[in-house]
Amino acid sequence: MTRPRPLVPRGDPADSVRVVGEFGVIGRVLAQAGTARAAQVGPGDDAAVLHAPDGRVVATTDVLVEGRHFRRDWSSAEDIGHKAAAANLADVAAMGATTTALLVGLACPPDTPTTWLEGVAAGLAAECAPLGAAVVGGDLVTAAADSAAVVLSVTALGDLAGRSPVLRSGARAGDVVALAGRLGWSAGGLAVLRRGFSSPMAVVSAHRRPTPPYAAGPAAAERGATAMCDVSDGLLADLGHIATASRVVVDLDRDALVRACLEPNGPLQQVGAALGADPLAWVLTGGEDHALVATFPAWVELPEGWVAIGSVQKAGKNPGVRVNGKSADDVARSVGAEGTGHVHFR
Amino acid sequence: MTRPRPLVPRGDPADSVRVVGEFGVIGRVLAQAGTARAAQVGPGDDAAVLHAPDGRVVATTDVLVEGRHFRRDWSSAEDIGHKAAAANLADVAAMGATTTALLVGLACPPDTPTTWLEGVAAGLAAECAPLGAAVVGGDLVTAAADSAAVVLSVTALGDLAGRSPVLRSGARAGDVVALAGRLGWSAGGLAVLRRGFSSPMAVVSAHRRPTPPYAAGPAAAERGATAMCDVSDGLLADLGHIATASRVVVDLDRDALVRACLEPNGPLQQVGAALGADPLAWVLTGGEDHALVATFPAWVELPEGWVAIGSVQKAGKNPGVRVNGKSADDVARSVGAEGTGHVHFR
Repeated sequence: MTRPRPLVPRGDPADSVRVVGEFGVIGRVLAQAGTARAAQVGPGDDAAVLHAPDGRVVATTDVLVEGRHFRRDWSSAEDIGHKAAAANLADVAAMGATTTALLVGLACPPDTPTTWLEGVAAGLAAECAPLGAAVVGGDLVTAAADSAAVVLSVTALGDLAGRSPVLRSGARAGDVVALAGRLGWSAGGLAVLRRGFSSPMAVVSAHRRPTPPYAAGPAAAERGATAMCDVSDGLLADLGHIATASRVVVDLDRDALVRACLEPNGPLQQVGAALGADPLAWVLTGGEDHALVATFPAWVELPEGWVAIGSVQKAGKNPGVRVNGKSADDVARSVGAEGTGHVHFR
Repeated sequence: MTRPRPLVPRGDPADSVRVVGEFGVIGRVLAQAGTARAAQVGPGDDAAVLHAPDGRVVATTDVLVEGRHFRRDWSSAEDIGHKAAAANLADVAAMGATTTALLVGLACPPDTPTTWLEGVAAGLAAECAPLGAAVVGGDLVTAAADSAAVVLSVTALGDLAGRSPVLRSGARAGDVVALAGRLGWSAGGLAVLRRGFSSPMAVVSAHRRPTPPYAAGPAAAERGATAMCDVSDGLLADLGHIATASRVVVDLDRDALVRACLEPNGPLQQVGAALGADPLAWVLTGGEDHALVATFPAWVELPEGWVAIGSVQKAGKNPGVRVNGKSADDVARSVGAEGTGHVHFR
C-alpha cells in the first residue's frame, strides 16, 4: 500500500520504537510516568490495582487522533500529553470527582521517535501530578500499516470522596447557569494556527495546553450543583446535552457571558479583530478549553471561580439552549459560527 | 493523500457513520451495550460511576488495530467485539479479579457501516454479560485521514472481592507451575487462515473468539497462587515475565505440556500435520488464547481446571524459562518457532 508522507519529519531512526523495541520503549516511557497516590499495583503487571476508598470509581475515556485532535507541527509532545490528560481530567471533574489514575493506549508508526513518546508521557504526568494522579497502565502497539498517524486513547479513573455524582439530567427550572474556566481561547488559538501565525501566545498556548478548572467540579458538587458537564464540543452544544437530559430550556444572558469571557481588549478580542471574526462565536461554539458549566439552585452562593451566565426555564415541548430567548442555531448563525458546536464525521 | 483501498468492501453508504452521525451511531451502538451490574451511572454522561465495594478497582487497557490484531475479512464484527473484550477480561482474571465494566474507544473511517459497529458492540456485550459486566462508556472518533483501518481500544475495570491481587513477582523456588485454558489454538487458527483455509473450524473459531478461563483467575487467587499472568504473547514469553519479575527459573515439563495441550489426533495435531508444522510451536509461542498460567506452593491442591506443567527453581544469576532444563530460545528454535513469542514493531 502507498505509505503517506508522515505529517512531520520523524526523528533519528536509531531512536525509533522499531529499533528500541516495545519493551525498551515502555521502560523509557514509564520512567516519565510518576506515581499515582491511589495505586496499590502500578504499571508492569497484567493490570493495575487502585484504591477506591469511596467504594465507587468514576471512569471515562477519550481518543485523540493525529491530524484531527492534534498536529505534531503545532504542538510539542508534552503539549499533546497535557491536552490528552486534560480532556479526561475535565470529564472526571464534571462529575464532581477528582482523577486518581490514567490508562493510556497508543498506536504509533514504527518510526515514531521514542523521545516523542517520552514527551507525551511527561506531559500526561505533569498534567496529573498536581492531583496526585499518574499513568498506571497502558498498551503500546504498531499503528495500521496504511497510516502515519498516532492514535492516543486515554482512560481516566476518579474518586468522588463520598459526594453524589453530578449528572447532566438534574437541572430544574429556576436554577442558575454558571461557568468556571475559559471559553473560546482554544478555538481562537486554533484559528490563529490555521492562518499560519503563532501569536498571540496566550490563545495559542490555550489551544496547546488547555487549563480546565479541575477543582471547580468537586466544589460545585459540594455546593449542591444540580447538573454539570465540561465544555468539550462548545458551550451551546454541551449545554444542549444538559437541556435535553434535564428536559429544560437553558437561557444564556449574552451580557453576562460577554462580561465573563470577553475581557475588553483581551486576547480573544484582539484575535477577532485581526482575523475579522466575532470572538463571541468562539465563546459560544469553541470546544477544547474544557471549562465546566453547571446549574445551581437559585439560593446557592456560587463557589469560588464560578460566575452566573444564565438561567434554567421550563421547556414545554422544546428543551434546548437559547441566548436572551433566541434559539442557539439563530445565535450561532448571527455570530458567524458554522453550527452550535463540533460535529464528528464531516 | 492517497487513500488506501479499504481492507474489505464497506457497507451501504446510507448506513455509514458519516451519514448517521456521531450521536445517532452512539445511540445505536449503546442499544447493544447491556447493563453492568456495578454501574451507578452508565453511558451518556461525562463519565460512568461504578460501585467498587471492595474499596479497590483493577484496571487494564488494550489497543487493537485492524490489519494487525484483526481482519474484517477473517472475523465478523461480533467476533472482533468478543476478542477485544476477551483480551482485557483475561488480564483482569490474571490479577485474581472479575471484570465489572468496559470502556471502549473507537477510531473509525467515516464510511464504516454502523451495522458493523453495532456488531462489535454486540460482541463486547456478549463476552461480558456472563460476568455481569457491560460497556459503561466510550468515545467514537474519526480515524486518521490517511487510514482506512479501525482502531479499537478497550479498558476493563474489575473487582477483587477482598482477595489480594496476584502479581507476576511472587513465584518462589519450589512452586508448581500450572495452566488453565487452551494454548496454541488461536495460533493454529491463524496459520490456517493465512493459508487461505477456514477449517478445521475448532481452531479458526478459537482464533476468532478466544475462550479464556475467566473463573480460573479468582479461583487461583483464593487457592494461594503466588504469581499469575495471562498468555497473550505466548507461553514462553509470558512465563518469562513471571521469571524476570520473580527472579526465578520457570522449568516446564515437556511431557506434561504435551499431555495438557496436544490431545492425540486433536485439532492442533491435525493442523500441524496438514501444514507441515510442529504444533508444539503454537503451544509454546502462540498468543491470544489468553490461557492463564500461575505458580502455586507445592502443597496446594490445584483448583479445578488447572493442570501442572512445570516447576519453579532458583535462578542464580539467570532468571528465565526453560523446557526440561533447556533454554526457551533453544526450545523455540527446535520446534521451528521464530522466537519465544510475539514481538511488536517488526
